[in-house]
Amino acid sequence: MKIYDNPPIELWAELCARPVQSDEGLSARVGAILERVRLGGDGALRELALEIEGKAPASLEFSAAEIEAAAGKVSPEVKAAVKEAAANIEAFHKAQRPSEVVVETAPGVKCIQKPVPIAKVGLYIPGGTAPLFSTILMLAIPARIAGCSEVILCTPAQSPEVLYTASYCGIKRIFRVGGAQAAAAMAYGTATIPRVDKIFGPGNRYVTAAKQMLGLSRVAIDMPAGPSEVMVIADDDASPAFVAADLLSQAEHGMDSQVMLVCRSSAFAEQVQREIELQTAALDRSAFVQGALSCSRTVVFRDNDDAVAFAEAYAPEHLIINTARPWDIASRITAAGSVFVGSYSPESAGDYASGTNHTLPTCGWARSFSGVNIDSFMRKMTIQELSREGLRGLSGTIISMAEAEGLQAHANAVKVRLDESK
Amino acid sequence: MKIYDNPPIELWAELCARPVQSDEGLSARVGAILERVRLGGDGALRELALEIEGKAPASLEFSAAEIEAAAGKVSPEVKAAVKEAAANIEAFHKAQRPSEVVVETAPGVKCIQKPVPIAKVGLYIPGGTAPLFSTILMLAIPARIAGCSEVILCTPAQSPEVLYTASYCGIKRIFRVGGAQAAAAMAYGTATIPRVDKIFGPGNRYVTAAKQMLGLSRVAIDMPAGPSEVMVIADDDASPAFVAADLLSQAEHGMDSQVMLVCRSSAFAEQVQREIELQTAALDRSAFVQGALSCSRTVVFRDNDDAVAFAEAYAPEHLIINTARPWDIASRITAAGSVFVGSYSPESAGDYASGTNHTLPTCGWARSFSGVNIDSFMRKMTIQELSREGLRGLSGTIISMAEAEGLQAHANAVKVRLDESK
Repeated sequence: MKIYDNPPIELWAELCARPVQSDEGLSARVGAILERVRLGGDGALRELALEIEGKAPASLEFSAAEIEAAAGKVSPEVKAAVKEAAANIEAFHKAQRPSEVVVETAPGVKCIQKPVPIAKVGLYIPGGTAPLFSTILMLAIPARIAGCSEVILCTPAQSPEVLYTASYCGIKRIFRVGGAQAAAAMAYGTATIPRVDKIFGPGNRYVTAAKQMLGLSRVAIDMPAGPSEVMVIADDDASPAFVAADLLSQAEHGMDSQVMLVCRSSAFAEQVQREIELQTAALDRSAFVQGALSCSRTVVFRDNDDAVAFAEAYAPEHLIINTARPWDIASRITAAGSVFVGSYSPESAGDYASGTNHTLPTCGWARSFSGVNIDSFMRKMTIQELSREGLRGLSGTIISMAEAEGLQAHANAVKVRLDESK
Repeated sequence: MKIYDNPPIELWAELCARPVQSDEGLSARVGAILERVRLGGDGALRELALEIEGKAPASLEFSAAEIEAAAGKVSPEVKAAVKEAAANIEAFHKAQRPSEVVVETAPGVKCIQKPVPIAKVGLYIPGGTAPLFSTILMLAIPARIAGCSEVILCTPAQSPEVLYTASYCGIKRIFRVGGAQAAAAMAYGTATIPRVDKIFGPGNRYVTAAKQMLGLSRVAIDMPAGPSEVMVIADDDASPAFVAADLLSQAEHGMDSQVMLVCRSSAFAEQVQREIELQTAALDRSAFVQGALSCSRTVVFRDNDDAVAFAEAYAPEHLIINTARPWDIASRITAAGSVFVGSYSPESAGDYASGTNHTLPTCGWARSFSGVNIDSFMRKMTIQELSREGLRGLSGTIISMAEAEGLQAHANAVKVRLDESK
């Protein structure tokens, strides 16, 4: 990791840049897949599976027997872990439930903001060597708390943990479909896979591109997706071993992950670098780690003001604050997905079990997006009820504004109600 | 308006379809404009104004003197109306402010959900013969309540009401820029126009396309936009004149607006039709009205169950329930932008003055999106703080899940903290 000692503010934009992914030809390929699924439904899903994975599944949906059998293959330790993590995630997300807001803004004018669940949601979990079943907890539990009436899962993963966790969270329908075609199936619906109102979950760049394209016209999506990232702010009192372990836990996600260290001295940065080398030697995924570290940076600032300003400019998905007085910094942060305060709050605690959600905005989207939370599965609808006197009270205001905007019929809708002789 | 008497459910998808807008060539034209602004900044904005509007403005920003002068041209009636509407909008949106959520999910594991304002937001108000200054109230007031530190406005409107209302809402910087180039300027920033984190507001199809394209990679946007629409559910006790006035107040928005009437009998539908003809005769914007009515529909259902199911299938932006017992229906609705309950709640009350927001999801997006509300200007950030004992308590769970997911370094970040001898 290259060290930048007290970089001038003109350099910050460059230091905050994320690794660029080249997408040439991607949208055309993904667009073609979406169109095939829209027109061809289940048949297209089978053909695509044959073309891409080399075989079409006998059934697009996992059977109840398959789901039950999966539970037998999951270790008791993992089952206990799922149970504990689920309980914490449930406790934190239940506390987030919004209340109905009722205000009489003027006599006879009642305004209500009513939270309602999004009816149908679709979750996606990618495949790979070790599918991330923890993400199911992060999506299915808030969906259930919100009261969504239908929650389905699409996944190419042949993983007992995935099936077990989905079933544990109450998901009844799990489909054996992956990639852009899974997103298309949930957005358009097929004979087998129901159409949903919103799609959640991570994926490779095909899935991400599909979600973006479908999100323009067809279905809501959770948030823009990008490679995962962490920023650690540490002072000289922090343990270089802890800091190195946190940076590595992010770096092992993939070649395009980014890790950023903000510290007080080059000497500390060098201690962390030595720890990284020591700890990396013992890791299986060291190729990913090397890739991620090559686009990562260490920045040295001598005071909190600069560190806070730089963190806000970067807007990290995960921000770990490992300093002697971490709240001096934490209380000033606004642009981060999730913040980890103090020496004993590693990112992996939030990734799995503290109760916070790990589906978070990346790539600087933490300036404008929240991570997944109970709101992601609900909408807020407004309702108003005016009495005749309430409408009379507002009539002058409505008519003046409507006429100034040239909207005569808007004014008439009030006049006709107050002029009538009944 | 064509009448469909008790249409079978197979027809509903067709009846719920929105007028289709053809977009051929639009994205290429808009993409070129975005690129010119990204590369050329203020100079490109001036050139585009010259090409599109025939003259480049002397200054891209309205001066304090111009804003002050505008106030002198606004009638006392409109000023009083702005004041009353603003007070109601403020009261309703203040009541929506979210609270911090703090939960100790396990001993020594504290999780916080902290609402924070989005720092910089940009509003857009289109031009035209009678610019919609009411939209400024709907966007600037919640932005101020949320605590956004910078709120700017771009508008091509040369309207005293727009400048006055913006200034009334505390907006300090107003830019004389319209169209796709305004969205680009706010997303990329120029020497004159600051870059923002989120863009709000209506626009023509150029602005809408620009927001969508910028929303993929550069800036958050309020919601997908489409032509405005209303559904009125009425029974035979409703006044045909009220219903007709409500349908017309939506129809006058534009040729592509859609109005839907759901009623109990063809006889009532015909009475409404006669009222529409009577009232339309007196309207200035009757060309828009005729256009909108040509793609509008009346559907007759004999009971509430069908009416509710059809409304949920359509998911209207505005839903007016003008029946003898409106709450029988209102309490069952989940998929609408804003609901107007009873005979004295015309849409124009919510468009201007009741206190609810009029920036609402169209085109069926009411299944998954909220209208603009206080959340639109905030994000919810999570924070967690674990004590050493808190981490120890979760360690088995975190390590089991990380290892089952093949993420060794995630497990190490816990182990290194609990193994150390300090």
